[in-house]
Amino acid sequence: MDDRRSLALLTDLYQLTMAAGYWHSGLAERRACFHLSFRRAPFGGAYAIVAGLADAIDYLKRLRFGPEELSYLGSLAHPDGTPLFAPSFLDVLRDAELQLDVAAMPEGTVAFPHEPLVRVEGPLWQAQLVETALLTIINFQTLVATKASRVCRAARGPDGRPEPVLELGLRRAQGIDGGLAASRAAYVGGCAGTSNVLAGMRFGIPVRGTHAHSWVMTFPTERGAFEAYARAFPRGCVFLVDTFDTLAGVRNAVEVGRLLREEGHELVGVRLDSGDLASLSRAARAILDEGGFPDARVVASNDLDERAIDALKAEGARIDTWGVGTKLVTAFDQPALGGVYKLAALEDDTGTLSPRIKLSEEPIKTSIPARQQVRRFRDAEGRFVADAIYDLDAGFTERTLVDPTDATRVLRVPEALAHDDLLVPVVRGGAFVYEPPALDAIRARALEQLSRLPDAVLAPRDPSPYFAGLEPDLHHLRARLIEAAR
Amino acid sequence: MDDRRSLALLTDLYQLTMAAGYWHSGLAERRACFHLSFRRAPFGGAYAIVAGLADAIDYLKRLRFGPEELSYLGSLAHPDGTPLFAPSFLDVLRDAELQLDVAAMPEGTVAFPHEPLVRVEGPLWQAQLVETALLTIINFQTLVATKASRVCRAARGPDGRPEPVLELGLRRAQGIDGGLAASRAAYVGGCAGTSNVLAGMRFGIPVRGTHAHSWVMTFPTERGAFEAYARAFPRGCVFLVDTFDTLAGVRNAVEVGRLLREEGHELVGVRLDSGDLASLSRAARAILDEGGFPDARVVASNDLDERAIDALKAEGARIDTWGVGTKLVTAFDQPALGGVYKLAALEDDTGTLSPRIKLSEEPIKTSIPARQQVRRFRDAEGRFVADAIYDLDAGFTERTLVDPTDATRVLRVPEALAHDDLLVPVVRGGAFVYEPPALDAIRARALEQLSRLPDAVLAPRDPSPYFAGLEPDLHHLRARLIEAAR
Repeated sequence: MDDRRSLALLTDLYQLTMAAGYWHSGLAERRACFHLSFRRAPFGGAYAIVAGLADAIDYLKRLRFGPEELSYLGSLAHPDGTPLFAPSFLDVLRDAELQLDVAAMPEGTVAFPHEPLVRVEGPLWQAQLVETALLTIINFQTLVATKASRVCRAARGPDGRPEPVLELGLRRAQGIDGGLAASRAAYVGGCAGTSNVLAGMRFGIPVRGTHAHSWVMTFPTERGAFEAYARAFPRGCVFLVDTFDTLAGVRNAVEVGRLLREEGHELVGVRLDSGDLASLSRAARAILDEGGFPDARVVASNDLDERAIDALKAEGARIDTWGVGTKLVTAFDQPALGGVYKLAALEDDTGTLSPRIKLSEEPIKTSIPARQQVRRFRDAEGRFVADAIYDLDAGFTERTLVDPTDATRVLRVPEALAHDDLLVPVVRGGAFVYEPPALDAIRARALEQLSRLPDAVLAPRDPSPYFAGLEPDLHHLRARLIEAAR
Repeated sequence: MDDRRSLALLTDLYQLTMAAGYWHSGLAERRACFHLSFRRAPFGGAYAIVAGLADAIDYLKRLRFGPEELSYLGSLAHPDGTPLFAPSFLDVLRDAELQLDVAAMPEGTVAFPHEPLVRVEGPLWQAQLVETALLTIINFQTLVATKASRVCRAARGPDGRPEPVLELGLRRAQGIDGGLAASRAAYVGGCAGTSNVLAGMRFGIPVRGTHAHSWVMTFPTERGAFEAYARAFPRGCVFLVDTFDTLAGVRNAVEVGRLLREEGHELVGVRLDSGDLASLSRAARAILDEGGFPDARVVASNDLDERAIDALKAEGARIDTWGVGTKLVTAFDQPALGGVYKLAALEDDTGTLSPRIKLSEEPIKTSIPARQQVRRFRDAEGRFVADAIYDLDAGFTERTLVDPTDATRVLRVPEALAHDDLLVPVVRGGAFVYEPPALDAIRARALEQLSRLPDAVLAPRDPSPYFAGLEPDLHHLRARLIEAAR
């Protein structure tokens, strides 16, 4: 949203108290490595589409403590009035320069549970400080991009051809740039356009929209309202037909469509926004076809998501364009990704970077130690076969991958497969070395990555898991650390 | 978020095409009246707490079309390359000044289904244009304030005394100012503080936080980690005790608490963030009590909401402070309020403002016509008895209120009751006439309003509905318009 002001305080207080504590303890400058990852793919699916990196970079670029921030932090006090932060620590913040190394999966990459989406290395206090904002930005955009990809997959014709999905959710979005970030991420995930004009201006997303029910209510008759809209926008008429009676509305649209045609313009379509969309869309299609408008589109909206679209298709709906709002921009059925940011390595007293682990009663919550990279293997046709999370310092040595939550599941990757390492350098020693691609390129990457996954992995419910395992050296390192910690 | 840039394009495209259409049709300057309302209270409850007005005012103050916005709108085109908007319409936007009248319920007001939270009057094109942003801002903050009030109600001691609820959700929030708006609204709804430092600085909300698991993992032992934290922050020690073994962690906290006490400081508490919080909190309480720290607090977090808190209390948990994150800031179980913005009156060809209605197959979706005000009746003790939605132009004449979704339900309001009209002037002829109160005053209003409602209305599930009915003249007007429209 805000292109100038520092977001340094967009963080949990404990990141700052820990930073102060690390300074107090002489540990602040020790080198640390954290990874941002998720443990379960959202919405009962098998994958997520990474989004938000451009905004994360923007946050890092603006990470500075100015007079306003320092004055506020200096004003925080314990109940007895003692300042929370020592002036010497505020001086550290004031003088700090970004010293981090950041690597990340490019936006639009398909990612799987436990894989690092972002790796952050550098002085402990800095690498810790950025946790909250990175999670806020990447959790949400990844969630919405993933949701959009599911909705767009549901909205395919019988031949697999994509039918346009428009994101119309701004009014139900969670705050102003909740709405902006959602529009951006929805486009990354495959949406064809948005109603959000500010998102159109800022991100270059195609914007769409014609009129609301209130337009129709403003005129004495629906027919008159359509005619007035046609006079104002003869080239872009999609008439909302359900203000009074949907099929009467379609017939009015056909009549105004004939007037448009006399002027040399074509009716673009009609929009249904309530009622039984399956039967109404079939009836609307028939009226349009019989009226001589076989190319006019039927646009439908009203609480749609991938399940509703699946159901409508199963009922034989004749819908050409899908308008999706609330359930997409809030990720209604799972409104948080639950991404985490875990310490994986820390410089010890001897100056050596040594791996760290966090245990949990739940195996899925036990962290993965060491500085990590993800290697993705492709077959001769370019299809993704498996991913390996490996220890960057040990390197990739062995192809028998181990499932991170069930060591009895292993996969042997054939020697012949080509591969890519997914995390690319973004920041090196505080210098920004990565130029985020244009949003269209990010969207194209997402669509291309999805096309390389087996259908069973893309299934909306009960998908086949994609094998994203630990390289065996990393698996053994983790097992040893678990043993030692217990 | 952004304190300077225009948010004029924070809108759906169709608001702008309709505005252009109204200009083209000669209707743009006709006087119109819209109301913002919700149809069902969220989360299965009976009420909502209004929030977001200050941000809505801020949006209206910044509603101007500058060169960047106009240039972008001028670049939009139909597929054949014809510009979407005529240059003459862009001139209208450039030269426009706000001419609206806005009245609204002050933030912190308890509101009920169908009541206007905001009334917007003025030239049709302007009153229409602001729909999307008003919905975005008020829907979300109202949703989160309401959720917070439910969580805070669950977190009361056996004597009804509130136990502090801290909002810790930034990392799972829906975008940057999704997080900021959520922190603000959560405070309005009764939270005692937030972890979000930027929200603390911007809104004056108390900020809270100590350390994360990564702090403990940084030191050779948990005990050493606690000691290091105690040296840095001897006055503010809440130790997170579940990095390895929760009860061993509590014992370490007690030992470090003894060291603190030798220095003249008191252990503030321990925080549990995983496992069976009911039994762990009881055990932690016992260890703290036996260790000589009966005043040390037990703070608990981990996917809490009002249901989880209810369940923990039923299981005899001994928790003093509740940390609530994801489920609060995303309103997890219902992440959208579904507020709507409906045309209620429009100037006709004779220059008279006449009421308008939008029908629907679902009675709950049939709109309420006419310019509205809400009158709230109080008994001698100040308890809220009923609300009446009435036609401002007809005035309040009759006390037999009619349920807007079931005309067989009526309530006769006794003559003797005192009352307040809830919507207050905010903007008059484009001039801002309302100064939003400080956030603490808004929060106090919310708590005071809730205290005036019967317990049965506040019940988290299957509440008694509060009677918010139509004044009979308005009911009859609506019935006549429904008949006429059919």
